[in-house]
Amino acid sequence: MQRSGEFELIARYFTPIARRSAASLGLTDDAAIFSQNPGQSCVVTCDALVADVHFRAIDAPETIARKVLRVNLSDIAAMGARPTGVVLTCGYNRDLPEDWIVAFARAFGEDCAHWQVDLLGGDTVSTPGPSFFSLTAMGEVPAENALRRDQAKPGDVVAVTGTLGDAALGLAILQDRVIIADPAHQDFLTDRYWLPQPRLQIGLKASSLGSRIAAMDISDGLAGDIRKITTASNVGVILDQAAIPLSAAGRAATMQDAITWQQVLAGGDDYELLLCGDADDIARLGDDVTVIGTVTDQKDQVLIRGLDGKMAELAKGGFDHFSKS
Amino acid sequence: MQRSGEFELIARYFTPIARRSAASLGLTDDAAIFSQNPGQSCVVTCDALVADVHFRAIDAPETIARKVLRVNLSDIAAMGARPTGVVLTCGYNRDLPEDWIVAFARAFGEDCAHWQVDLLGGDTVSTPGPSFFSLTAMGEVPAENALRRDQAKPGDVVAVTGTLGDAALGLAILQDRVIIADPAHQDFLTDRYWLPQPRLQIGLKASSLGSRIAAMDISDGLAGDIRKITTASNVGVILDQAAIPLSAAGRAATMQDAITWQQVLAGGDDYELLLCGDADDIARLGDDVTVIGTVTDQKDQVLIRGLDGKMAELAKGGFDHFSKS
Repeated sequence: MQRSGEFELIARYFTPIARRSAASLGLTDDAAIFSQNPGQSCVVTCDALVADVHFRAIDAPETIARKVLRVNLSDIAAMGARPTGVVLTCGYNRDLPEDWIVAFARAFGEDCAHWQVDLLGGDTVSTPGPSFFSLTAMGEVPAENALRRDQAKPGDVVAVTGTLGDAALGLAILQDRVIIADPAHQDFLTDRYWLPQPRLQIGLKASSLGSRIAAMDISDGLAGDIRKITTASNVGVILDQAAIPLSAAGRAATMQDAITWQQVLAGGDDYELLLCGDADDIARLGDDVTVIGTVTDQKDQVLIRGLDGKMAELAKGGFDHFSKS
Repeated sequence: MQRSGEFELIARYFTPIARRSAASLGLTDDAAIFSQNPGQSCVVTCDALVADVHFRAIDAPETIARKVLRVNLSDIAAMGARPTGVVLTCGYNRDLPEDWIVAFARAFGEDCAHWQVDLLGGDTVSTPGPSFFSLTAMGEVPAENALRRDQAKPGDVVAVTGTLGDAALGLAILQDRVIIADPAHQDFLTDRYWLPQPRLQIGLKASSLGSRIAAMDISDGLAGDIRKITTASNVGVILDQAAIPLSAAGRAATMQDAITWQQVLAGGDDYELLLCGDADDIARLGDDVTVIGTVTDQKDQVLIRGLDGKMAELAKGGFDHFSKS
């Protein structure tokens, strides 16, 4: 069966989602139009995913749709902002069946509703190559409260939300690089890879404190991402390996084989928040946040106190999916 | 020579462009942050281009960079808005040499400066397939002055900026489908294909009148695009073929072979504005705007008075680059 044309695809599957938002003008105009709330600044970010680079082409369309949205909402969370609207470019491989697109659009719409964010517009194109999705997310936050990366100071504590390494372990399971005996652990870890949980509530809580807090989301792994804060803030850090929060499944994996600490320290896709601030302010964020280290005045020096108590430099190991090596 | 990784490419070629804007945070944070000017609403639009679907992969990187920016600025112009910032996703084919990316980034930066628009952020990814570029453009306009498609009323005049058909003829020349004897005409037409001129000044002038004016940009051809206004506004139109503005080169082409009227009526890529409004308001937009018809109360009926004086229905013929047929 021939697939519908661009205009039909948009009209049939995306217009019903966008119609929930007056700003989108029903996707029938040149652009969407919306107003910022008084006192708020606009935050904008963009992340693209390419089949078999950032997701597996064999993954379910629902999974990909949610991931496209959520990795961007995670960036909004990392600014301490509330998401307001998204603009989505879909580049569908020309041989994808329309069923796939239906499932993708439905899941995308449901996830927009779940996170209370409007689909404002977008573009739908066909490509002879791998499918790609590029999403621009917008949010709002009082400018003075935004959680920027350049705000860390010596003496701050370093903290993270949730648990680390789960998503990288989940991907390793899917790629048959790691074997986990417990099926419940397996499912937990692969779910963590498939379905990031943007930490919007904690981000908003942190910005609403009105305190100086540096934040970013961990998309490329703790070891690489922490350096983005140290560089932006002209500081260093000492991390404590024993303090790094692990899920039950992650802990079982590291007990079974210590090499899986590599996934915890340098694996990507967790989309947890990494925060630096006064110990008192971080404590006010509650139980979902775990202190894992302290900020030093040694610019760009990233040290880790290992499980054996010895101090070592933490190699970058950040995931650079653009390198051809 | 191996190409630089994602982070290096961004730092080396895009950060210098973004640094002109405080809002971009130097591309080193999770998101850009900016404030809307008081009384203005935010306009947002998005268009993606894929190699060998929307541009020719053999085109110069400078040409592609400008086109990616300008087709989106054209949508901002069609809302009567002033462009403020853009967010760019680059999906480079993994075999593109770094030279190509350097030339692309330089031209993109220069064109941003030319149109006084800030690069706020973006994403750079690698793809084994055809290169793609997705741009989200933001602008501002007082909400009540925005030029929406649903504002046309019976009795309005229909008008366009510039001249029509040039870009489609330019593409036809590049594809050896049309032969134009005069080399100056050839160059003019191919330039019109390569380098759209977003009609920002006229869009702003139209919105600043504070009058009811419907507008859109002609990206898929007059015949198809006019139907988007008639549908949104519940009206019809009668166009006058003899009134359609042609460039000297376009006129020569239609004189040489009447079949090139097909490019004028249904060819895309001109990015001129199509406007409907009171004759007096349209007249105030000046000499760059030509009246080509009138709005009727016959919903979705698009008629054209031919050069022979006879009335005919104008077939859709809109370019739907997503259809596989």
